[in-house]
Amino acid sequence: MRHDQLDEPALDWRAKGFWQPDPPVPDAVFAAAGHSLFGGAVTWPVLAVRRSAVAHNVATMADFCTRHGFSFAPHGKTTMAPSLLDAQLAAGAWAITMATASQLLACRALGVPRVLLANELLDPTPLRWLAGELDRGFEAYFFVDSVAGVEAIATALADQPGEAPLRVLVELGFPGGRAGCRTVEQVVEVAEAVAATPRVRLDGVAGYEGGLPDDAAVTAYLRRLRAAATELARRRLVGPEVLVSAGGSAWFDLVAEELGGDWLAGHDLRVVLRSGAYVTHDHGFYAEHTPFHRIPGEGGLDAALELWAQVTSTPEPGLAIVGMGKRDASYDEGLPVPLRVRRRSGEVHAVEGMSVDRLNDHHGYLAVPPGVEVHPGDLVCFGISHPCTAFDKWRAMPVVDDDHVIVDVLRTYF
Amino acid sequence: MRHDQLDEPALDWRAKGFWQPDPPVPDAVFAAAGHSLFGGAVTWPVLAVRRSAVAHNVATMADFCTRHGFSFAPHGKTTMAPSLLDAQLAAGAWAITMATASQLLACRALGVPRVLLANELLDPTPLRWLAGELDRGFEAYFFVDSVAGVEAIATALADQPGEAPLRVLVELGFPGGRAGCRTVEQVVEVAEAVAATPRVRLDGVAGYEGGLPDDAAVTAYLRRLRAAATELARRRLVGPEVLVSAGGSAWFDLVAEELGGDWLAGHDLRVVLRSGAYVTHDHGFYAEHTPFHRIPGEGGLDAALELWAQVTSTPEPGLAIVGMGKRDASYDEGLPVPLRVRRRSGEVHAVEGMSVDRLNDHHGYLAVPPGVEVHPGDLVCFGISHPCTAFDKWRAMPVVDDDHVIVDVLRTYF
Repeated sequence: MRHDQLDEPALDWRAKGFWQPDPPVPDAVFAAAGHSLFGGAVTWPVLAVRRSAVAHNVATMADFCTRHGFSFAPHGKTTMAPSLLDAQLAAGAWAITMATASQLLACRALGVPRVLLANELLDPTPLRWLAGELDRGFEAYFFVDSVAGVEAIATALADQPGEAPLRVLVELGFPGGRAGCRTVEQVVEVAEAVAATPRVRLDGVAGYEGGLPDDAAVTAYLRRLRAAATELARRRLVGPEVLVSAGGSAWFDLVAEELGGDWLAGHDLRVVLRSGAYVTHDHGFYAEHTPFHRIPGEGGLDAALELWAQVTSTPEPGLAIVGMGKRDASYDEGLPVPLRVRRRSGEVHAVEGMSVDRLNDHHGYLAVPPGVEVHPGDLVCFGISHPCTAFDKWRAMPVVDDDHVIVDVLRTYF
Repeated sequence: MRHDQLDEPALDWRAKGFWQPDPPVPDAVFAAAGHSLFGGAVTWPVLAVRRSAVAHNVATMADFCTRHGFSFAPHGKTTMAPSLLDAQLAAGAWAITMATASQLLACRALGVPRVLLANELLDPTPLRWLAGELDRGFEAYFFVDSVAGVEAIATALADQPGEAPLRVLVELGFPGGRAGCRTVEQVVEVAEAVAATPRVRLDGVAGYEGGLPDDAAVTAYLRRLRAAATELARRRLVGPEVLVSAGGSAWFDLVAEELGGDWLAGHDLRVVLRSGAYVTHDHGFYAEHTPFHRIPGEGGLDAALELWAQVTSTPEPGLAIVGMGKRDASYDEGLPVPLRVRRRSGEVHAVEGMSVDRLNDHHGYLAVPPGVEVHPGDLVCFGISHPCTAFDKWRAMPVVDDDHVIVDVLRTYF
């Protein structure tokens, strides 16, 4: 299995979607050339990012957090795109949220100054590394949800030199949910274990309401999160600064209702919202579930991702095969949504009732209503559902203006 | 959305799964260091490749093709891993199969001498490029399935200089299937369009039986494919060399039965098998569907992929949360399959009835039977189902020997 015949380094500069037969110019030079998305600088399929929509979404959520007195730690695992993390930090984000040790390391390499790792961290290798980085001025928080987990951290750090404490938030979950203590009593028990452990410091509580079914369940859960923070403060297991974190992209209106305001008397309360998918929004799950449907006066999001694919075959009436599939589009929270058809002539048409039936790795099955014409060579523009599982299928994406001129190259690091 | 604050180039050398706080040594140096998979050189989750299993599978399918007189063009889209393509070519593969224009370009950059693009190709940009590369000695074939498609190719090449013809295979599909002509009559019609088109040359017929429900349907379909080749030869629309291609990883025993032997009298027949998933096999869909169940005397495949993830939380009885999810494992043809548990002590246990219930982006929900113990910090080794959608989630994977010593780094280029 050694690499004897093929020239692997020749692939290092290539990225799916971009048409690069020759070693490319730097991204900034490419972006300055004014290529049209349809001029041969990309091939199909390609996932394009609408610059104006991203800018709108970044500003909208920054404003939402300012208005409600929240600190914002947008979830960077959605995109793993430095240019988008940059934009979020420039718009005032307090930190970047991440999900894994590997992503924490990526943030540190990038120079992100403060990371909220919204997950337990039990692997001795990154724990020891993190202790060292905290001593060098990095700021990071992660979750704990069990006494056994606190003990695992203590064991990992037993012979680790240094001074700065690991800063943790006790995670509160809910029965039938993911990680996290199931009760406030368990939160207290874990907090007490933290208090008894050298080099670990409790900074607050955190949770994730995204798996709950409806607004009543989310509201009840957020109140338990608030009760947990209140109980930890009452017992002097946390404070005087107390961090309370929640919030994906589906319920941040209820987070504002339940966690907004100065409800922890005598403490310096920081409520941290962690929405991620908002940054590009979508044409599926989040288009349906965005809280802005319930609070239209506070703004709205604009779907930023366009997946362009070519019709390669129209083999029987009612069916067109397009050149995109599971390798290119998210398919876990709904299939791609046809938005427009672009003929080889450049004419653009509405989709007239077409829909995606299913995907193979590199093929999509497009159901075409009677009387609607699509031809081999036509391009179809799709919206996607669930940005997280769309971004992770692309190493580079063209950023386009509203005329589909390529203005930037967005790179991802999954 | 310009990249002002963060140090993006610092990420270029990082890959998920490997723990690389510092710029790394070259892969060959890393591989020679004798790291254990459990010694801190990787973090969790990580997708490991068992070297012995890959070597066994590559040899097994090479032997199968030799035994049945087939040319082998293993589908490289499964892995997009130069080291595996290398191994397949070294074992005698006649060509590498690919699915998209982007993958065709990658093969050319790598130096793969002959590519079968098992798909229609209608985009003028790669078509013009391909015409030029064929003039420079590259050998490639792709599919056509419509007169409109042949016309699109002709239009793209209208003002293209050069001499070497584009070499195409007419694709035969089946009603309700994916791309491809539905009847032998349509195959003839497309072949006649090719014959009337300058710079395009017909080399044979091709199909894909993977979407068919059972052996009767596959057998009937392969006979139609044979009938199509026979009819094209009879009409002198192809030949004297005739290429006939079929075969994924689920039905190659029937391909051997129906397309083996010298059945096209007076012609030089080359039957090309295109299996891809066989190279790592799996613990799910292909473990269930491999043709070797029906022809055990011809060999068998060995599942090569091990996804290792850490238990991060055991929040309630019967549930453990592991640190792997949709970003790490395939989930389109079955969820990951728990194989073993490794305690923090290094002890290894059987999984005792555990199963994966569902996945979030970075979390897996492990159902744990009563009486079975798992603890935060334990590692769980999972098999996967469907190699294609596992490989595309990793840029680099440790290759391990049977003692889990890392012996190579496998890089992918999706």
